[in-house]
Amino acid sequence: MTHSAVAAFGRDAGRLSVGGVPVDRLAERAGGTPFFAYDRRLLTERVALLRATLPAEVKLSYAVKANPMPAVVQHLSGLVDGLDVASALEMRAALDTPVPPERISFAGPGKTDAELRQAIAAGVTIEMESENEADRVAAQGRALGIRPRVAVRVNPDFAVKGSGMRLGGGPQQFGVDCERVPALLKDLAQADVEFLGFHIFAGSQNLHAESLIEAQRRTVDLAVRLAGESPLPVRYLNLGGGFGIPYHDRDRPLDLAAVGANLAALVAGPIREGLPQARIAVELGRYIVGECGVYVTRVVDRKESRGKTYLVVDGGLHHQLAASGNFGQVIRRNYPIAVAGRVDDEPAETVTVVGCLCTPLDLLGDNVSLPRAEVGDLVVLFQAGAYGLTASPTAFLGHPAPAEMLL
Amino acid sequence: MTHSAVAAFGRDAGRLSVGGVPVDRLAERAGGTPFFAYDRRLLTERVALLRATLPAEVKLSYAVKANPMPAVVQHLSGLVDGLDVASALEMRAALDTPVPPERISFAGPGKTDAELRQAIAAGVTIEMESENEADRVAAQGRALGIRPRVAVRVNPDFAVKGSGMRLGGGPQQFGVDCERVPALLKDLAQADVEFLGFHIFAGSQNLHAESLIEAQRRTVDLAVRLAGESPLPVRYLNLGGGFGIPYHDRDRPLDLAAVGANLAALVAGPIREGLPQARIAVELGRYIVGECGVYVTRVVDRKESRGKTYLVVDGGLHHQLAASGNFGQVIRRNYPIAVAGRVDDEPAETVTVVGCLCTPLDLLGDNVSLPRAEVGDLVVLFQAGAYGLTASPTAFLGHPAPAEMLL
Repeated sequence: MTHSAVAAFGRDAGRLSVGGVPVDRLAERAGGTPFFAYDRRLLTERVALLRATLPAEVKLSYAVKANPMPAVVQHLSGLVDGLDVASALEMRAALDTPVPPERISFAGPGKTDAELRQAIAAGVTIEMESENEADRVAAQGRALGIRPRVAVRVNPDFAVKGSGMRLGGGPQQFGVDCERVPALLKDLAQADVEFLGFHIFAGSQNLHAESLIEAQRRTVDLAVRLAGESPLPVRYLNLGGGFGIPYHDRDRPLDLAAVGANLAALVAGPIREGLPQARIAVELGRYIVGECGVYVTRVVDRKESRGKTYLVVDGGLHHQLAASGNFGQVIRRNYPIAVAGRVDDEPAETVTVVGCLCTPLDLLGDNVSLPRAEVGDLVVLFQAGAYGLTASPTAFLGHPAPAEMLL
Repeated sequence: MTHSAVAAFGRDAGRLSVGGVPVDRLAERAGGTPFFAYDRRLLTERVALLRATLPAEVKLSYAVKANPMPAVVQHLSGLVDGLDVASALEMRAALDTPVPPERISFAGPGKTDAELRQAIAAGVTIEMESENEADRVAAQGRALGIRPRVAVRVNPDFAVKGSGMRLGGGPQQFGVDCERVPALLKDLAQADVEFLGFHIFAGSQNLHAESLIEAQRRTVDLAVRLAGESPLPVRYLNLGGGFGIPYHDRDRPLDLAAVGANLAALVAGPIREGLPQARIAVELGRYIVGECGVYVTRVVDRKESRGKTYLVVDGGLHHQLAASGNFGQVIRRNYPIAVAGRVDDEPAETVTVVGCLCTPLDLLGDNVSLPRAEVGDLVVLFQAGAYGLTASPTAFLGHPAPAEMLL
């Protein structure tokens, strides 16, 4: 039980608790297992940590796609400065919060005309991913008689080392290549749109502060350069996110203080000088919610097979695809895992935890050291707050949907 | 357009059609894109091919998990001899067909007591995955006053070479190790259950007839051996499936005739001798439905980025996870892909087809040769009939659910 994710949750006489309620009681409250439980206090503390570590000039936006549960979005809406959405449905969830539309940004490479129309009518900021999208935004704005609020997503000319996923540099489906942005800005100056600024984001799930620092420096440098060629003032710069969380035993947590210090230096230096009117934002999803949630399953079978012990649980990759190693990971490694009723016990055996699906892909913990668990015991997967339920094939094999609770 | 999957569908003046209806008209009928379309004729023909090639003594069971769309299950229920289900929901879909309950088998390593109870009440055949499950089945049967129909899923002592996924051999979460089966059979002879036989299945998505042939030989050999030690007659042997389909250009289709000839020899030889009372079944999902469906998307954006051309479509991995290479594949390779309105045209350019999600994982066709496609054109992914919609994270980013149509 050394992983920091486990220690963050409460304990009550050897039982794991979320929001002060033991997990076994939550299972009764949910009407069964499996379920997701998110901890309101941990969400609040995570945003407070970001506020305390990043300079006040850097605004926080929550990327709803990481966890779109309405209660989570509502809770975070009172803590952050803005919300980022990736679809019309996410936009509607964001608009249902007190966050004003102009603090909601809408990104994504395949926005349809219908989605653009909804976004323009709502008054949110559209982060445009191509020249074609810029034309379509202007046309929809004219049709509606509303001046769209727009930013340009820029594909930088550099990548970020050490990112879990690369979203910038080289050819990309995201954004407009930075070398073509000046021409687009000239067009936008003539178009009937309200140009705000840039979204530049090069990679996600990065645990290396030095890589993020370099990316942020280069991003600001690029934004300053583009602002210099812009016929319109730059009033907005979304630096993206990419702050990683430690999923595996050997992962070292991100040095947030170093990232904060660098952002402070950027704000005091090149941003003050080159982007004096710009509202600066970082957009974080996983970093805010990822460590604040658990996925709780129950052991249905405990079986031996040729020297190996399996715990078969009633959940699986249909609810937690990433934990099974099947969502973008090159190498599968275990997420932190615990027996909910024995969090203070020492490991007693090596077991393999599998889900209930008829596929060998449904592997939740491979050869993990755990206290002994019997049929009926609850097994908890940590780091389940982001890209869990909605990033999983929930209809696969037709098992019931799990409950989600914010505590 | 050389892939056999493309040629199997109809054409109408250069336009792809499914069930005799051009795909662009289907898009209007569906009310938009993306959507899945399955071809009733191709399903019928595929089952007819199996009937013509496999010996009449080998019964066909359809594995509902491959495509649980109710209309597909209903159509196939009139063509096959049985249905295999992996959850209570799939079982209810199967029970809604005219297939009698005793021809429905229920497999899966994590069946809950509630699911077992439903299965016993329904009278379906429970393929038990462990000794613990056998005890729970017997207990639930006693509680209901119904004698459960059961088979034992056996983990063989061999694996199948060349399978996409290994489900047997070595330690496994599936089935009872074959060396422990005789002891279980003795217990079952005393228990209040109706023992039918065995389910032995070692690997899926196999394109190599010689591997399947060897696996079937060894499976029959193992079943005969176990039958010899069984205190109860063996009246059922489910050989599983594992028949693969060609997803990629370099894949060669399975030599079904060779598999059929081998099964005929097994039926006439060791099965007649060693399992004279057994109903023999193969359980096929992907092989029946996989090639009979397409996933249709519309081009939302066509963009250049540093020498690369991207087609951004309104679908993506949230509907077709496997086509993006993120569901169990070690190496990502393209599924067959076409421009629906230009299926007779020669390729004119190399493009990369991406979905609308904000993730670089959302890649549907990497550097594919296609006729030129513009915004508004329909792009079709083939081999989408199995493990498509339900095996994908449909809620990811909150895009609308696609339509499904059986034509």
